[in-house]
Amino acid sequence: MRNCIGIDVGGTTIKFGLFREDGHLLEKWEIPTKTEGRKEKLYGDIAASVRQTLVGKGISRVNLAGIGVGIPGPVLPDGKISALVNLGLCDLNLNTELPEYLDGVKVRAVNDANAAALGELWQGGGKDYDSLVLLTLGTGLGCGIVENGRLVAGSFGMGGELGHIIMNPDEPEACNCGGHGCLEQYASATGIARMGRRYLESCDTASVMRGIGELTAKDVLDAAKAGDPLAMEAVESSMRYLGWAMAHVSHMTDPQCFVIGGGVSRAGRYLLDVICRHYESFIHIQKPQAKVCLATLGNDAGIYGAARLILSD
Amino acid sequence: MRNCIGIDVGGTTIKFGLFREDGHLLEKWEIPTKTEGRKEKLYGDIAASVRQTLVGKGISRVNLAGIGVGIPGPVLPDGKISALVNLGLCDLNLNTELPEYLDGVKVRAVNDANAAALGELWQGGGKDYDSLVLLTLGTGLGCGIVENGRLVAGSFGMGGELGHIIMNPDEPEACNCGGHGCLEQYASATGIARMGRRYLESCDTASVMRGIGELTAKDVLDAAKAGDPLAMEAVESSMRYLGWAMAHVSHMTDPQCFVIGGGVSRAGRYLLDVICRHYESFIHIQKPQAKVCLATLGNDAGIYGAARLILSD
Repeated sequence: MRNCIGIDVGGTTIKFGLFREDGHLLEKWEIPTKTEGRKEKLYGDIAASVRQTLVGKGISRVNLAGIGVGIPGPVLPDGKISALVNLGLCDLNLNTELPEYLDGVKVRAVNDANAAALGELWQGGGKDYDSLVLLTLGTGLGCGIVENGRLVAGSFGMGGELGHIIMNPDEPEACNCGGHGCLEQYASATGIARMGRRYLESCDTASVMRGIGELTAKDVLDAAKAGDPLAMEAVESSMRYLGWAMAHVSHMTDPQCFVIGGGVSRAGRYLLDVICRHYESFIHIQKPQAKVCLATLGNDAGIYGAARLILSD
Repeated sequence: MRNCIGIDVGGTTIKFGLFREDGHLLEKWEIPTKTEGRKEKLYGDIAASVRQTLVGKGISRVNLAGIGVGIPGPVLPDGKISALVNLGLCDLNLNTELPEYLDGVKVRAVNDANAAALGELWQGGGKDYDSLVLLTLGTGLGCGIVENGRLVAGSFGMGGELGHIIMNPDEPEACNCGGHGCLEQYASATGIARMGRRYLESCDTASVMRGIGELTAKDVLDAAKAGDPLAMEAVESSMRYLGWAMAHVSHMTDPQCFVIGGGVSRAGRYLLDVICRHYESFIHIQKPQAKVCLATLGNDAGIYGAARLILSD
């Protein structure tokens, strides 16, 4: 059985996973991200680390199916990446440039949120499905769409950018992207905390959230679970936007399953129930049938998905 | 070169197209739809008409790649069709049942709106693209999504059901589906006429629309083109919902192109300009890049797409 490598390039670390073709993770490791503003430095560091592991494991070049690389930015269908803002790099094409550092091994770059979706489909919460949508509720709102086993990466690198669909054009505050009322402004961890603060400021109702200094999504969710009425309202209004957006997705790519990941998903069953209720309320042409479940791979979803990509491409 | 047949089953007629594999339409014809509530009657009529044409053209069974059939209802991935309400039929599977009437020829059923999208991609307004979304603005709002040359038909037959995404939950009137504020309630021909009436009723402003008895979408669009302020407001508010929904699509499947068809699309360039302006106003994470163009196959899109399906499947 051959091997493949999945890499997840983040702003502070580069994670690596060495896999068997059947999805078994043989080894994972990481190195610090140090680009010094030069893509050659990034390529060199990745290549040295891959080579070291292959030698250490006695894996020959011919037994390596390829390397998938998840990166924090949009990837065009031809592999071009115009900018990786977090890494201070621009004008990359890992598919054509990275192989030069690794004896011509096959390389495929993929957006990191999309990679995570493919990972959850391969070995995670969506293992029983062919079509799923991963929603990663963290600082931002990441999303990846897999349809019939294939990533919907999009023509202009905007596939699965659900975090920035505008749900409420009347929102006074601006999103990081410049839009007003993006889904990310409500349903990410940042968004849930923001909604908690907004409810606190809107009234004088007693709430356990009032005693907390820097209110986090976890604070809001814990208070809501404990029955705090104001926190419950905040969670309801955040998750109503998420459920509504999921209904939009069901009317477009119609997945078998939504997988909820990211820090917010630690709220578990309580959160899933709220999401499901709102999701179902926005579907009328037929009974809602997509399952809603939790992600299981955590921060490893990206390396799994990047590795899976190289096997299917 | 082999041949293929595309069929579009409607409530009153069944349209047929005999194609060469390269997309050239050799002959088209139609017969009345007479199911008498029995699927066997439908299959028998289709088979007799196909056989007659093949014999007349001297085309042997071995030269027929297959038959694609567009039907007015959801088709599940395994070909099952639970109901065709307009035809009074239920529990069909054309993929497995129709071949019995035609010496085992390959048959693939497809939702008619999805078939039309594939048709426009093959030989119509989207001929230069791999990924497009067709929006058919007629009595209802039909939609089909093609991504990377492949139909996004969905897991539960809901792929491309954009007409029923809820854009405005505060809408007092109900949609046919039971929802409130579906896109179809604003951006279909019916929806545009409804918005025209709503604007007339909301004020006393002079408008050429006031003299018209049964106001149609064409009346509203013609008045708007002629500069009637109330009609222009009605068209703006209808097309704002359409542009907003198209922006949702761009953040999910990210097509190269939107193709606008159906009777409403006869309003041409004026309409496209209004749609584009609203579409672009809802995209902030990058410059909007999808083209917006007109459908070119009219009512033949369905037979083209059904025929194309059989070649790709």
